[in-house]
Amino acid sequence: MTNTADFPSPDFDPEDVQPAGWLGADEIAAARRQLPLVYVDAVPVRVDESGDVVAVGLLLRVNRDGVMNRALVSGRVLYHERIRDALLRHIEKDLGPVALPQIPASPQPFTVAEYFPTPGITPYHDSRQHAVSLAYVVPVGGDCRPQQDALDLAWISPEQACSESVQAEMYGGQGVLLRQAMAHVGRLA
Amino acid sequence: MTNTADFPSPDFDPEDVQPAGWLGADEIAAARRQLPLVYVDAVPVRVDESGDVVAVGLLLRVNRDGVMNRALVSGRVLYHERIRDALLRHIEKDLGPVALPQIPASPQPFTVAEYFPTPGITPYHDSRQHAVSLAYVVPVGGDCRPQQDALDLAWISPEQACSESVQAEMYGGQGVLLRQAMAHVGRLA
Amino acid sequence: MTNTADFPSPDFDPEDVQPAGWLGADEIAAARRQLPLVYVDAVPVRVDESGDVVAVGLLLRVNRDGVMNRALVSGRVLYHERIRDALLRHIEKDLGPVALPQIPASPQPFTVAEYFPTPGITPYHDSRQHAVSLAYVVPVGGDCRPQQDALDLAWISPEQACSESVQAEMYGGQGVLLRQAMAHVGRLA
Amino acid sequence: MTNTADFPSPDFDPEDVQPAGWLGADEIAAARRQLPLVYVDAVPVRVDESGDVVAVGLLLRVNRDGVMNRALVSGRVLYHERIRDALLRHIEKDLGPVALPQIPASPQPFTVAEYFPTPGITPYHDSRQHAVSLAYVVPVGGDCRPQQDALDLAWISPEQACSESVQAEMYGGQGVLLRQAMAHVGRLA
Repeated sequence: MTNTADFPSPDFDPEDVQPAGWLGADEIAAARRQLPLVYVDAVPVRVDESGDVVAVGLLLRVNRDGVMNRALVSGRVLYHERIRDALLRHIEKDLGPVALPQIPASPQPFTVAEYFPTPGITPYHDSRQHAVSLAYVVPVGGDCRPQQDALDLAWISPEQACSESVQAEMYGGQGVLLRQAMAHVGRLA
Repeated sequence: MTNTADFPSPDFDPEDVQPAGWLGADEIAAARRQLPLVYVDAVPVRVDESGDVVAVGLLLRVNRDGVMNRALVSGRVLYHERIRDALLRHIEKDLGPVALPQIPASPQPFTVAEYFPTPGITPYHDSRQHAVSLAYVVPVGGDCRPQQDALDLAWISPEQACSESVQAEMYGGQGVLLRQAMAHVGRLA
Repeated sequence: MTNTADFPSPDFDPEDVQPAGWLGADEIAAARRQLPLVYVDAVPVRVDESGDVVAVGLLLRVNRDGVMNRALVSGRVLYHERIRDALLRHIEKDLGPVALPQIPASPQPFTVAEYFPTPGITPYHDSRQHAVSLAYVVPVGGDCRPQQDALDLAWISPEQACSESVQAEMYGGQGVLLRQAMAHVGRLA
Repeated sequence: MTNTADFPSPDFDPEDVQPAGWLGADEIAAARRQLPLVYVDAVPVRVDESGDVVAVGLLLRVNRDGVMNRALVSGRVLYHERIRDALLRHIEKDLGPVALPQIPASPQPFTVAEYFPTPGITPYHDSRQHAVSLAYVVPVGGDCRPQQDALDLAWISPEQACSESVQAEMYGGQGVLLRQAMAHVGRLA
């Protein structure tokens, strides 16, 4: 999971949908520790004319301990936000405004990654929270430039994506999720 | 969406996973109005030897206004609960302990139903909250007895499930979701 | 199913893969009546920036009896041809060379349509043969011009696609398949 | 792919559907080298109460060269046979009549394995033919006894199924297909 903040999209006005008893940031943070959160994970890919995946894009980040790691595009779904809008928002946030992602027409994810605060219950782990993440493979056709806290966006082959060296640089089960994505597109090595 | 309360499963002890700053029921209720909630929807079916759907089970309920309606098995996923355990729990809660559901081996849902508090944004609507519901078709092999607030469980054919009269008795977009389930199993009428 | 002939793609040379005992056209035609054939069905769609389907493309044809009908893009998979290449070939054959289809990265179809020569066994029927068709929703971004025997390509809304008047103009179960596609993308009306 | 013969199911009478110009066995064999064939692959699994895969069943066979190998349940779909009936027939043929398979309610496969006679085009290979195989994970609840040419049916854990030693005993890309199945059920190791 990424550590980036979740900013609402510009055309989203919480005032429109705000019921009585609105909680403050601290209480929302506490609630995040008592309710499973809805997330999306996106695996950005380059495809050829026949739709075959030729490259996978991974974000390169340095974590709080100064260790390099590779990550998928990942983030929270906001109140009153559609899954497809959350996917678009997070991809634009991480890959820039001209990545031209092809958001899937169908909401059916290729899998659901259940990030548990306790390790070992599922292959996915997030010490901060319980997140239920809908995972999608998203072809991007435009120019991708890493944004915010990412140092780089590296395009690697499906074979490299499944390699031990790349898997060792991914955390919280995202390496498994990446290989599940490659299995889904017929490119598991 | 059902109106039934969500009781944790007996072997779930929130104390085990409770971090600091635990919120009270009121605050959780408020949080439910500011965060999308994770739900599951299950379409209980009877199948023949070849897996072909021969009947669909719908709960018959009377709502707060005294109007009869038909509903799918539906409910919230709890903190620290797996999707598959939530599915099992809600099916047992609504259909009884000997329904013998065949919970899907794969977490991939046939669709994701996004229930919005504002009608018209998606085909699904829940005035109480924003719920993101993973939807599954679940064959049940055992004896089903409606529990709690349900008056009856009616088994109808896939054709009847898609009929206007049945669709008219379903609310919040569950009629659409039921037809999507029938489309998924190749029995859309 | 379309009535168009299946021409191999230009870069396919059957000589490369031809084993001994190659059959003539008549025998292949006979074999087509004794073996299930592999087909693909494509539902061409226009999507918005968030991937939401805004229009569906249907081919307008006149059949042998002079009756107008609407059809999906459909055709046979050739010997030694990949599913994704067959999809691309049939879309270009029916929609022209600049349709710019986004062939799915995953080979997982949204459903499998089993066209039987005997009506009533499945929702799909083809009097000429038994075809097992892998069905995909394919967003097209470019300019579509109906080719060959099609009179027109009409773009209609998902709601219209599910309407009785459009359904009445589709044959062999393609109307059901189209509604299954709309169910898959969350636009079943 | 298995080497077992494909016997029609007892209640299938080809006379009912036989058109003029029926080909002999030799010609059908020749046609099989000029048309892609429709196959099914089944990954038999044991699941727990929550649907989680706890074991995978693999057939143990000795090939023509006397080498041991492990295989999935696999076989051809016959003319005028539904996918779900072909799945049931092949599972009963390989695992015996009391395996009690839970044939999927939906025809949507988790992937499509394209076995090419030429190696390297896809991850799957079959020197005899071009087969397009719809792949399903099938929970079996009953007693499984290997039939015909299989020496044994071994139940192994999902982790073992993904291990190098098991993968090395699988041929034609079935090792990859098995790992794709494990990815689909959330048990890729």
